[in-house]
Amino acid sequence: MAALTLHPDRLFPSDPTVRAIAQRLYREIAGLPIVSPHGHTDPKWFADNANFDNATSLLLLPDHYVFRMLYSQGISLESLGIRRKDGVAVESDYRKIFQTFASHYHLFRGTPSRMWLDHVFSEVFGFTQALTTATADNFYDSINAQLVKPEFKPRTLLDRFNIELLATTEGALNSLKYHSALKGTGYDKKVITTFRPDDVVDADRADFAANVQKLGELTGQDTQSWDGYLQALRIRRQFFRDHGATATDHGHPTAKTADLSKAEAAALFALCLKGEASTQQTELFRAQMLTEMAGMSIEDGMTMQIHPGAFRNHNPVIFQNFGPDKGADIPSPTEFVSNLKPLLDKYGNNSDLKIILFTLDETTYARELAPLAGHYPCLKLGPAWWFHDSPEGMLRFRHQVTETAGFYNTVGFNDDTRAFFSIPARHDVARRIDCRFLAGLVAEHRLGEDEAAELAYQLTYGLVKKAYQLA
Amino acid sequence: MAALTLHPDRLFPSDPTVRAIAQRLYREIAGLPIVSPHGHTDPKWFADNANFDNATSLLLLPDHYVFRMLYSQGISLESLGIRRKDGVAVESDYRKIFQTFASHYHLFRGTPSRMWLDHVFSEVFGFTQALTTATADNFYDSINAQLVKPEFKPRTLLDRFNIELLATTEGALNSLKYHSALKGTGYDKKVITTFRPDDVVDADRADFAANVQKLGELTGQDTQSWDGYLQALRIRRQFFRDHGATATDHGHPTAKTADLSKAEAAALFALCLKGEASTQQTELFRAQMLTEMAGMSIEDGMTMQIHPGAFRNHNPVIFQNFGPDKGADIPSPTEFVSNLKPLLDKYGNNSDLKIILFTLDETTYARELAPLAGHYPCLKLGPAWWFHDSPEGMLRFRHQVTETAGFYNTVGFNDDTRAFFSIPARHDVARRIDCRFLAGLVAEHRLGEDEAAELAYQLTYGLVKKAYQLA
Amino acid sequence: MAALTLHPDRLFPSDPTVRAIAQRLYREIAGLPIVSPHGHTDPKWFADNANFDNATSLLLLPDHYVFRMLYSQGISLESLGIRRKDGVAVESDYRKIFQTFASHYHLFRGTPSRMWLDHVFSEVFGFTQALTTATADNFYDSINAQLVKPEFKPRTLLDRFNIELLATTEGALNSLKYHSALKGTGYDKKVITTFRPDDVVDADRADFAANVQKLGELTGQDTQSWDGYLQALRIRRQFFRDHGATATDHGHPTAKTADLSKAEAAALFALCLKGEASTQQTELFRAQMLTEMAGMSIEDGMTMQIHPGAFRNHNPVIFQNFGPDKGADIPSPTEFVSNLKPLLDKYGNNSDLKIILFTLDETTYARELAPLAGHYPCLKLGPAWWFHDSPEGMLRFRHQVTETAGFYNTVGFNDDTRAFFSIPARHDVARRIDCRFLAGLVAEHRLGEDEAAELAYQLTYGLVKKAYQLA
Repeated sequence: MAALTLHPDRLFPSDPTVRAIAQRLYREIAGLPIVSPHGHTDPKWFADNANFDNATSLLLLPDHYVFRMLYSQGISLESLGIRRKDGVAVESDYRKIFQTFASHYHLFRGTPSRMWLDHVFSEVFGFTQALTTATADNFYDSINAQLVKPEFKPRTLLDRFNIELLATTEGALNSLKYHSALKGTGYDKKVITTFRPDDVVDADRADFAANVQKLGELTGQDTQSWDGYLQALRIRRQFFRDHGATATDHGHPTAKTADLSKAEAAALFALCLKGEASTQQTELFRAQMLTEMAGMSIEDGMTMQIHPGAFRNHNPVIFQNFGPDKGADIPSPTEFVSNLKPLLDKYGNNSDLKIILFTLDETTYARELAPLAGHYPCLKLGPAWWFHDSPEGMLRFRHQVTETAGFYNTVGFNDDTRAFFSIPARHDVARRIDCRFLAGLVAEHRLGEDEAAELAYQLTYGLVKKAYQLA
Repeated sequence: MAALTLHPDRLFPSDPTVRAIAQRLYREIAGLPIVSPHGHTDPKWFADNANFDNATSLLLLPDHYVFRMLYSQGISLESLGIRRKDGVAVESDYRKIFQTFASHYHLFRGTPSRMWLDHVFSEVFGFTQALTTATADNFYDSINAQLVKPEFKPRTLLDRFNIELLATTEGALNSLKYHSALKGTGYDKKVITTFRPDDVVDADRADFAANVQKLGELTGQDTQSWDGYLQALRIRRQFFRDHGATATDHGHPTAKTADLSKAEAAALFALCLKGEASTQQTELFRAQMLTEMAGMSIEDGMTMQIHPGAFRNHNPVIFQNFGPDKGADIPSPTEFVSNLKPLLDKYGNNSDLKIILFTLDETTYARELAPLAGHYPCLKLGPAWWFHDSPEGMLRFRHQVTETAGFYNTVGFNDDTRAFFSIPARHDVARRIDCRFLAGLVAEHRLGEDEAAELAYQLTYGLVKKAYQLA
Repeated sequence: MAALTLHPDRLFPSDPTVRAIAQRLYREIAGLPIVSPHGHTDPKWFADNANFDNATSLLLLPDHYVFRMLYSQGISLESLGIRRKDGVAVESDYRKIFQTFASHYHLFRGTPSRMWLDHVFSEVFGFTQALTTATADNFYDSINAQLVKPEFKPRTLLDRFNIELLATTEGALNSLKYHSALKGTGYDKKVITTFRPDDVVDADRADFAANVQKLGELTGQDTQSWDGYLQALRIRRQFFRDHGATATDHGHPTAKTADLSKAEAAALFALCLKGEASTQQTELFRAQMLTEMAGMSIEDGMTMQIHPGAFRNHNPVIFQNFGPDKGADIPSPTEFVSNLKPLLDKYGNNSDLKIILFTLDETTYARELAPLAGHYPCLKLGPAWWFHDSPEGMLRFRHQVTETAGFYNTVGFNDDTRAFFSIPARHDVARRIDCRFLAGLVAEHRLGEDEAAELAYQLTYGLVKKAYQLA
């Protein structure tokens, strides 16, 4: 029976010189608290503080990294218990689903999921044997037995995981009731929200007009008018700030921005509301709204995150049967230099503005993003994102970005996850990779080891708190 | 006089830890039979089983990697004996051509051609000195002297090279007479064909209408009608299957697919046949035909290979004087996410369908191909292709693909060559690079060595046979 | 107080095997003279041979790598002493500016600027302590004290730096008076010019028509006619050749070329002169002019350099207040395969023509540039350029280009700098990286060490002189 061990030097190069430096750098920062300024955990967990109930519903069902890989190898989503929209029954035997997963665990070799899951199995649940068909039942039973214990309550885990801060992400219409419920518990400083207004900004959504309507109701503004709509957004931003938000987030198909006249913008908004906007016009409206949001960020001081480039719901069969977020979002080529220009022409030289750029198109790291961030005071570079949030992906990010943007135009790590239990694993991978990258520079006499140690601290902790304005 | 030695650790990293692991992994798979599911050797060689006659016509004249490099440095194709279409005489002194090549052999430093050729010189012909101007005559004479021996007959070499299976590639109108001739020799299981219908699908070709006409004659179908044309293709596919084919291959300028209605497709086909289709329309027709071929693959079970992105015959002077395949095909940017969507919308969730995607645009590895293959059951990723079929190219493929697609959504190695003698060299490079990549993961504690050993077997043998359905 | 030391093994890998080989290779070529065939130093320095007067105006003010990074972190260009176009006063206390720079020196960690500056501080000025806030005054005073010495005169430094040849770059209308002034000093063979006609070719410039007018006055040609304009360019090319030029340089937004009929070209030229050309038409005119320049290169034998892909003056606020070349030029996606085709169709097979291609879009290295240069006799690949002129950038270039283009289709290193004092540092980085790359190939038994030594010489010296026709 294969052992499950997390080697203390995992992810460090085998070259003894570099490894020794990486070990020393890592030792100093391994124990720093986790600051997680961008993610998708459910605030209900922390508000209710109820135990999680099952290995499968905790670890597998919400993790589209896991079931997309299984699906790619011909395993139906139904057999994995993913709920169908038409209500047709799917596999509901959680043990069986866990067994299916375990018997295909070899598919994850070489992927970050494997590394994160092994970390969870070993560090959080204490397993010493590898997950296989043979050990599946034992894993399943043991995880379930542990989950009911008091030390596995969400708030206790927040503390055990050494999480100093965890930002969730909520749509503009969210009541933030779970964040409200946390007030007075002491955990309201730990679990904060992020303002993500895509639902009231993206006129391609079927519910756009209804959402704008609700936005008006929530804020007492006439959101049928351009001015009222903008004012309503300001009010919601303040509401989110009152629930801890220090940042906004914007998931757009492209990085396109615009700087329309007020009259043009108002007319375009009216067209979008009526549902008469063309695809180009809804794209232009989103573009205009990025610029509007940048303006509001200057007003209220919130850091602005832009996540462009995902082709959402690429697989219509999956979307129709199972809905969004089922592993069928695919990156696409993304352009920044021309697309960001209208916003940058207007606000780019304002050093009070903080915009963090992310990409799924790695070709832009060295060609566009590092040169932009190495010039514009408002721009910083977010970490390797999504499919690139992996050892090799993070290394490519550092190798391609650092020489032009330096370290200080980057903002530390985002785990960007809804997989709560994997947060320590993900931050640990990022810390190891950063230490490894720095150790390479030291070993090649491109950086002093004292400087590398200072940078390891900044990449893990200092720059994150600065970029997201976490006092 | 410089020695020619193939170092037993060539292509392994010099770090002793990684190298030792790579050695162990390689030792286990170095002797596995060669499965070559995609290539361009001439079936006549194996049908006739006649000796090859000359070093120059065997090793240089058919190898566009070799003469394109020489041409780039100002050496005329005429002086290399490449036949002109106008019949003007070119160099015909094969010894002199071989000397020209030898005296420029330094140009290949750092290229895979150098590595393959040295392997052939050392392992196949037994040379112990490097090829230089001084040794050129000795090489030329010795190779020629060996080529006439019985142990250099093509079938004997198939066995000597430990080739379990070799797929050639033939156009849709090919008589497959050489494959037929192999029946009963025992070599018909070893040398199989592949169905490549570009000649009857690409309406930009001058001979398209004539080819479709011939297709009708060969199959007894009315290929002037859309239905008859499709039926004729089905019949030819079966004919190829009867000669061993388990796969089709499609070399298109782009990865564009379409899903037209039957009436639209029929009208477009008629336009193409009449030679009245615009460039966009011939592109659309090729796009539609990829989707048709995918449908037929579901019917008859053949694996479908898509090779997009080559700008063929970029140099009109060379094309006019010497014809196609003279080293003047150049890769171009290739997009998959939108282009494949019509086909994937129709068939993407069918796990009986097997489509292998190749690219010449490495930016798509991590951005598009790995995410697509890590989701769609029908998609697998072909190995690094053509200019990227090289140590660094293969490493980039594994580094950029593995974390999102895993290993099991890849399909092993293709040598894709008409250079028969280089097949063992090419497979050996691929095996060494895979072992090296795996050894790196083991050395960094990202994978167990037992897992790496299993993967080395899969990448060399198991996944190839599965992907190409070679029982 | 941190020490400033240039480690003798800097930039070499820490693996002892590779490092030892790199050391041996480097030892042989470290002392070769510097050949700098492309750069932007001021010929006035060498003509006047006056001492430089101040650390800040010498090292900081002209270096947009330095002030773009500081600006990206919120430090105003005014506070760095960058002159405003409106004459509003900016910081003029050079000591204070130097202190500002010193106190932000940590921002450059991991960037090539840091490496170059440390080299200058250590090797040129003899500092043994690192630059920090605490040592800033000492640096400033000591540099200034040294700058006034006779051994810091520009010509003396040319000799001290072991510079065999330095090419400057001048616009088509430049009087070349400084190069003239050098005649008879012996330094006219060392400091040569390069013909850069962008100012009379780019009709998007506000001064285009005026420049063409001046071109006529300088040459006695009627530059209002297409024939007269072309003849005037020929005359200026000869004038530059008389001042040492062996090469031309062309900085275009894209790599687009065209091959218009004479009548079309003449009509387009007339439209451009009248200021009535659209953006597409000025682009087409530049495209046509690249082809014209290639034709003239065949006539007069000058090597042609093409530098496409920079989005110039991306930041309009900076451009308006401070002018061009203030760190706001950003790379953009660049396409070569289609864009170069008209020129290549006309002249691509002429092996007397020498065109050196550069790119800011690294995705084209393996996909487009190496395949093109590995085929067309007229094409060679320039080194990693601008943002990619850095250790990692150079490594990516070699890793991605070599397997398809080989080494002999590359042309050695360009420092491309106006920072005269950094020239030895930049060439040293390039030499170390090349030796390191070659050492890796040797350590992995992909190249003999004797071959690597020959290549190190070629990459440092031989290929540069050949490509730029420096006898």
